[in-house]
Amino acid sequence: MKKILLSTTMLALFAGAASAEVTLSGSGRFGLDYAENRDAEVQLAYRLRINVDAKFEADNGVTYGGRIRFQNTNSTQVVDVSDGAAVIRNAAEFSPAYLYVEASGVRVEVGNSNTAIDSVALMYNPEIGFQESSFGDPEGNFYSFSSGPYGANRVGIYAAYSYSGVNLKASYIQADQTVDTGVNGSGADELSVAADFTTGQFTVAAAYADNGAGIEGNYVTFVGAAYAFSDVGNVGLNYNDNGEYGAWGKTITLYGNYTINGITLAGYVSDSDEEYIDEDGDLQDNDTAYGIGASYDLGGATLAGAIQSSFQGEMVGDLGVRMSF
Amino acid sequence: MKKILLSTTMLALFAGAASAEVTLSGSGRFGLDYAENRDAEVQLAYRLRINVDAKFEADNGVTYGGRIRFQNTNSTQVVDVSDGAAVIRNAAEFSPAYLYVEASGVRVEVGNSNTAIDSVALMYNPEIGFQESSFGDPEGNFYSFSSGPYGANRVGIYAAYSYSGVNLKASYIQADQTVDTGVNGSGADELSVAADFTTGQFTVAAAYADNGAGIEGNYVTFVGAAYAFSDVGNVGLNYNDNGEYGAWGKTITLYGNYTINGITLAGYVSDSDEEYIDEDGDLQDNDTAYGIGASYDLGGATLAGAIQSSFQGEMVGDLGVRMSF
Amino acid sequence: MKKILLSTTMLALFAGAASAEVTLSGSGRFGLDYAENRDAEVQLAYRLRINVDAKFEADNGVTYGGRIRFQNTNSTQVVDVSDGAAVIRNAAEFSPAYLYVEASGVRVEVGNSNTAIDSVALMYNPEIGFQESSFGDPEGNFYSFSSGPYGANRVGIYAAYSYSGVNLKASYIQADQTVDTGVNGSGADELSVAADFTTGQFTVAAAYADNGAGIEGNYVTFVGAAYAFSDVGNVGLNYNDNGEYGAWGKTITLYGNYTINGITLAGYVSDSDEEYIDEDGDLQDNDTAYGIGASYDLGGATLAGAIQSSFQGEMVGDLGVRMSF
Repeated sequence: MKKILLSTTMLALFAGAASAEVTLSGSGRFGLDYAENRDAEVQLAYRLRINVDAKFEADNGVTYGGRIRFQNTNSTQVVDVSDGAAVIRNAAEFSPAYLYVEASGVRVEVGNSNTAIDSVALMYNPEIGFQESSFGDPEGNFYSFSSGPYGANRVGIYAAYSYSGVNLKASYIQADQTVDTGVNGSGADELSVAADFTTGQFTVAAAYADNGAGIEGNYVTFVGAAYAFSDVGNVGLNYNDNGEYGAWGKTITLYGNYTINGITLAGYVSDSDEEYIDEDGDLQDNDTAYGIGASYDLGGATLAGAIQSSFQGEMVGDLGVRMSF
Repeated sequence: MKKILLSTTMLALFAGAASAEVTLSGSGRFGLDYAENRDAEVQLAYRLRINVDAKFEADNGVTYGGRIRFQNTNSTQVVDVSDGAAVIRNAAEFSPAYLYVEASGVRVEVGNSNTAIDSVALMYNPEIGFQESSFGDPEGNFYSFSSGPYGANRVGIYAAYSYSGVNLKASYIQADQTVDTGVNGSGADELSVAADFTTGQFTVAAAYADNGAGIEGNYVTFVGAAYAFSDVGNVGLNYNDNGEYGAWGKTITLYGNYTINGITLAGYVSDSDEEYIDEDGDLQDNDTAYGIGASYDLGGATLAGAIQSSFQGEMVGDLGVRMSF
Repeated sequence: MKKILLSTTMLALFAGAASAEVTLSGSGRFGLDYAENRDAEVQLAYRLRINVDAKFEADNGVTYGGRIRFQNTNSTQVVDVSDGAAVIRNAAEFSPAYLYVEASGVRVEVGNSNTAIDSVALMYNPEIGFQESSFGDPEGNFYSFSSGPYGANRVGIYAAYSYSGVNLKASYIQADQTVDTGVNGSGADELSVAADFTTGQFTVAAAYADNGAGIEGNYVTFVGAAYAFSDVGNVGLNYNDNGEYGAWGKTITLYGNYTINGITLAGYVSDSDEEYIDEDGDLQDNDTAYGIGASYDLGGATLAGAIQSSFQGEMVGDLGVRMSF
């Protein structure tokens, strides 16, 4: 659901001319969040996200534009002035911007760009609950479009091409473009590539990041496949190699969902090859992580809830509402 | 005056479907501010306030949405970078967000919610001048929707119900929801309730906050009544018990206004039961605070001015313009 | 290209009533930036700028409104929280606000106002490249509308009057309005005036600032003249006295541009009367600064590039796209 601010050029458009516009859209969610073994186990969770999208469509059909996001969640942290001193408080905050140009199925973004690996199909499909989370998500380190501030002088370039069900993406993120990489410890440049393909009921996807999140030698890989076994049911299998510096090594996640009478039931199981050290300092085999969730269509908004168990066997859960604007 | 950004769904609405929108509205004011005994007695004062309201109206008539505000005044303080160091400067800043759901006269807000006591009718009616201030305002401590950053991990819930001239409100604000209250000194939870009722020319209102502003043992009370003695004239009486930690103890404020030839004259007198310690360290009986103001309709915008005298006998005044967008 | 958010009053307007609106507009640019002798000589440069303009048009034809800007560039610096500590990062940031009233050709701004000297015609005409820069720009210190945070308690007033090709402007900026100037070292008040006049093919402009940028004794002067020798060609001459504290003393800049087949070629040469001290500590005569650029209309967006040489003979250049929303 995309918002349109009518511009004078837009009004002119109704009479046949070119178009420029700045639009607002976004999403909201709120509800209860549960996590075992924290001080206050049940907490309120909310997020309000607003995207500011500027767009200029030239006479020749090429589109130019940009995006800045601002959002606030129950745990956003900003630096604020209280009694003359800087303290950490809560308020909405801005993202950095990206600019883009788009023509003939090719899109190029510059700045706080998306990244290939973060944009690949299927990777976040195991997510459940009104907060859309999953222990089957990638646990490794890689860049993505950032909703909040990031390292000074970071810039990215991202290119995407779509044709007939095939999506090809590549991105290159410089941790600090004002220094020559290697001269100091300011971070390596992340290169990532991704491809996904849908044909009939099948979708396959793969992505790879070199120096993920600017960490030299951090290789992160994703491979996924999904099958829509009916109009209302899907199953999928995701493989994540989370890299040398990511949690939980290599994980395999099986997930599925099924919709009946407006209710969608979803679930996943995820297995990791890593052990972990528990509170007592003992080495433990990880558990199999899993989660089950349900969501219900509230006439356009969605009521959703989930319970999930982590690789360490700790329970989390949520129940709430989410919507798009 | 509420702004509407037409969304694609909104455009669809004209053809009969559901609706989602992100709208901008707000208010502005600017003029001169006078205060006795400060270094520069006459200063420029201005405020530009923009509300970003996201709304989704589901097919079943239930409305979901949220708000983030940003604003700037002549005295806004933000932390900024200057020559690599963090310094206090001036710029617009964001509020935290609230999310809400509304149906059948009931509205529930979560996050940076409104509070019952701050939303009660009549309480701010003694305000005058283009900056809408009054020494007859409550002097106690309680939470409200915050236009700027607030304590990390604060969250609130607010519920309001309106039916046939009766408004009932309740709110519960946790100073820090990530800790169990009482375990540490992070603040108590504020509970507040409010009710107001209008019938014919009479309005009565009452509100109460327990642990006002998260201060344990801080009880704040408000009772007010107003009478519209004609189409163009009103009088009212407000009682504020400002609680143990609020300034000026208990105050009683008598106020009124009368409109003639497009000019509204307004005034109030307010009495407190507290004494105060003056510059010389002597205990002084407080003065009776009072103020008189006038406002004039500029074809939709308002020219307004006021002079007021505080409980300590110090004069303040303002003259300027305010408007809504 | 101005954006219009339809307000309910605006909708009413179509039926004949007054109007209030909050509109979004802005500009974007991105490309490559080159500068000799820095660590990474070629860098990505981008900027996304969004203006939030609130406006109320009263029944009597007087317009009231205000502006807050937010923007992000590749080098924006904000203070952010990382691991509980305040660090410098990159994200979009707000400007302070101005409020204004406009009637009968007179416009008055209060707050983060424009300034007379910064708003004078011709002064920035030597700018070239997609980033619109020039060594022929004024090198002195004076205030302007600020796109980011500025000193706490700074406020300005600006007045402009336009009639029949004549523009008269005056502004007064207080560095800190809460202190009486002279009592401490918080900065003097800047007064600036400007006038420009266009008749037929000729434009002349002049501006002057006293205590420029709040620096006591800093007098900054600008005089410029331009001649449109054809529909597609212009030449101009700008004189800048950059004041005691500005770089490069007094500069004279000759510039021109010519458009042919949708390509605009532009160039300038600028001469300064100042010497400078080079890396070896030797006093050097300055070089003549110069630049040449070209821009091409991309159906409404603009592809532009430039190479420029500074007064010290250092080369900079850029190539990219810019657009308005």
